[in-house]
Amino acid sequence: MMATLDDVLARADRDLDHSLERLFELLRIPSISTDPAHAPECRRAAQWLVAELASLGFDSGLRDTTRHPMVVAHRAGPDGAPHVLFYGHYDVQPPDPLEKWQTPPFEPVRRTDSDGRERIYARGASDDKGQLMTFVEASRAYVEATGGLPVTVTVLIEGEEECGSPSLGPFLDAHRGELKSDIALVCDTGMVDEATPVITTRLRGLVHEEVIITGPAVDLHSGMYGGPAINPIKVLAGIIADLTDRNGRVTIPGFYDEVRDLSPAIRRQWSDLNFDEEKFLAKVGLRRSVGEEGYSVLEQIWARPTVEINGIIGGYTGVGTKTVIPSQASAKFSFRLVADQNPERIRESFHAFVRERLPAGASVSFGPAVGASPAVHIPESNRFLGAARQALENEWLTAPVLLGSGGSIPIVGNFQKVLGMDSLMIGFALDDDAIHSPNEKYNVESFHKGIRSWIRVLSALANER
Amino acid sequence: MMATLDDVLARADRDLDHSLERLFELLRIPSISTDPAHAPECRRAAQWLVAELASLGFDSGLRDTTRHPMVVAHRAGPDGAPHVLFYGHYDVQPPDPLEKWQTPPFEPVRRTDSDGRERIYARGASDDKGQLMTFVEASRAYVEATGGLPVTVTVLIEGEEECGSPSLGPFLDAHRGELKSDIALVCDTGMVDEATPVITTRLRGLVHEEVIITGPAVDLHSGMYGGPAINPIKVLAGIIADLTDRNGRVTIPGFYDEVRDLSPAIRRQWSDLNFDEEKFLAKVGLRRSVGEEGYSVLEQIWARPTVEINGIIGGYTGVGTKTVIPSQASAKFSFRLVADQNPERIRESFHAFVRERLPAGASVSFGPAVGASPAVHIPESNRFLGAARQALENEWLTAPVLLGSGGSIPIVGNFQKVLGMDSLMIGFALDDDAIHSPNEKYNVESFHKGIRSWIRVLSALANER
Repeated sequence: MMATLDDVLARADRDLDHSLERLFELLRIPSISTDPAHAPECRRAAQWLVAELASLGFDSGLRDTTRHPMVVAHRAGPDGAPHVLFYGHYDVQPPDPLEKWQTPPFEPVRRTDSDGRERIYARGASDDKGQLMTFVEASRAYVEATGGLPVTVTVLIEGEEECGSPSLGPFLDAHRGELKSDIALVCDTGMVDEATPVITTRLRGLVHEEVIITGPAVDLHSGMYGGPAINPIKVLAGIIADLTDRNGRVTIPGFYDEVRDLSPAIRRQWSDLNFDEEKFLAKVGLRRSVGEEGYSVLEQIWARPTVEINGIIGGYTGVGTKTVIPSQASAKFSFRLVADQNPERIRESFHAFVRERLPAGASVSFGPAVGASPAVHIPESNRFLGAARQALENEWLTAPVLLGSGGSIPIVGNFQKVLGMDSLMIGFALDDDAIHSPNEKYNVESFHKGIRSWIRVLSALANER
Repeated sequence: MMATLDDVLARADRDLDHSLERLFELLRIPSISTDPAHAPECRRAAQWLVAELASLGFDSGLRDTTRHPMVVAHRAGPDGAPHVLFYGHYDVQPPDPLEKWQTPPFEPVRRTDSDGRERIYARGASDDKGQLMTFVEASRAYVEATGGLPVTVTVLIEGEEECGSPSLGPFLDAHRGELKSDIALVCDTGMVDEATPVITTRLRGLVHEEVIITGPAVDLHSGMYGGPAINPIKVLAGIIADLTDRNGRVTIPGFYDEVRDLSPAIRRQWSDLNFDEEKFLAKVGLRRSVGEEGYSVLEQIWARPTVEINGIIGGYTGVGTKTVIPSQASAKFSFRLVADQNPERIRESFHAFVRERLPAGASVSFGPAVGASPAVHIPESNRFLGAARQALENEWLTAPVLLGSGGSIPIVGNFQKVLGMDSLMIGFALDDDAIHSPNEKYNVESFHKGIRSWIRVLSALANER
């Protein structure tokens, strides 16, 4: 008789202590990618994962890049089963300040805290070794209980996520045929709280722009020319001031044309989160939202486009004074995009907007056209999303919330752009995991139910053939 | 019989070659004040002047400062005669780039150029050794022809003008009683052209301001917070954009309350200069004036107040991109003031203007209140001005033009502020003197007629008792 889903889950439950031991082996390797001195440790972490996946019957290998190697592993599922690509990263942030750690960052401990909860403390316990091992251990339980995986799985684990992923784009591009799957599973996100799972289905897109305004040909003495001379800082300030209106809306013509309203169901789901806006803002010293009127803070961040000025410089910026009218002033802008907003069209509209506001006597140039990525949005009708939602609800006994994220997760954009592949972002981290900080932790329950969740998701996806 | 004015002028004419020889002695001393290695040369120039003035019967001495010494000399005139303070500076700019000089900068030459005009080439030939020696040689002619000076003269020659005059303010303050005179004569300005003398009677005042806007308490990720978070660059840009209107006028309430219109006579005089606005602007890459509507460029620079933004900085300003909403942004402003505008009142109005435009959630701080100097304006009714105008007209056979200057000449502000003394700014430099540049020159005619002009001015001032 074939093993049932319950058998696989039971296997995972029984094996939890061993799963944790394996995770601890990985956590003991200080694979700090940003520090060249730790390159051998990064390689060791990759090799450990290659061996681990090979032991599960994956065709598993290490692929060199110009910096830290990738781990790529394949294991075929039944004929006709969907093909999923699982993504994680084995590299971690530097642990400093070391003196703030209660236990050494690369000597993981499992501890029951005073609130009765068991937690794992180590650098990478959550981000992303703990999270990626939930998938590896789910695969192990499946293979050991059933002799195989219910879907075809490709695993891609990089070692440069914490240092900007320089090799990832070229690597995806060079191995499209090998990596292209039906859906990607990205395990680098969190839950609403300990009881409420999340699938992140929206990421805002991003367009970077740099505007350089030139007025006079050379820096001028502000006494000798102040009055008649055009000042590029004034011109730039006028453009920036014009760019948003009193209601927090971007004034570029057509900017909102491709922006779609949220479905009432999603709006209700987000409203039901009872997100404490005031607390969220106060944490970083903000008194109130200045975002687009008529939208909650979560809607502003997850589902509404915006423009930010990331930097500005012009003239004399040292200590004291200098009576100068500068020749140039420049600013860096970033647009956060949603839904179907086309990055290149937004870029063109912005250029036109700037040119229209250019007074006679000023000229403009734009920086290199870098960083254009469209927003990511998995529609609620996506069949893999539907399967994953049900699987998570079965495990947590509450429906997962479909969230957005204000920022961009480059890997998801890359999967979409290079491989034409949607991603389901599912993770079990909690807000208090202290990732990138001292005393990073992962709850044992996150790890355990994370493994169980992936078992259920793999099982559910198998039906979407 | 007493020597007449003509005798003094004739004496100066006869002595011209010797006057030039004495000037050349001074020009040979490389008194570069900004370079500590040249401190001994600065001292030598000061000592040379002390001796020169002593030889003319001045009670002459060298006064040490923390950097380069001052030269102070007194010679009493007839009882009841006015007391004038003559100001100049013996220090010069560095001569580099040396390879661009046709003759070595500290080996002065007298040369007839292809246009038939005789010129003196050397660093300092015009600025300010040539100019100050016109006064010294005028005094020599007077003393040698008449045995004395027609007015009481105090000479103050500093050695730090080209390095910011750090000692001047404290020195004036410490020697008020000794230096306070009826009028100051400042010889560091130029003529309209070779035939038209100038008295500069207006200098714009100056108020420096620095505005620091704080939004969030810390730099934020623009993806995570873009939308609700207030951006201090946007706030600052809004303030800058608001500060001037479409007609180039400053919008701060009350800003123009103390600004007076030009007299029709002065307006006509300036208009008669046939100043080539287009050429003036094109020289520095400006296409047209963006200054206050209804005023010529000269009026905008010499007689209208303005605000400039001298510098701005905030957020990420390096190469590439950074997705940040900065906590702070700041800008440096300078107001050019005219007539009776009160620097401290302008400062207060500006602070109020900024505070009124501060959205909830942003805060402002202002930099140290430095650099407040009122405008200088010698009214046309000033009796010393009237005397000097007539004297210059007698020499040049054309009425001197009463000009303004857009910038501030610190010494004039200091004379007014510390000593409560007006200044007549009279000089014989020409626009093509190449001061601060290679091949600096002074026309022999500037030097010769400069000497004659001072003789006539001293004679005329003697009557204003």
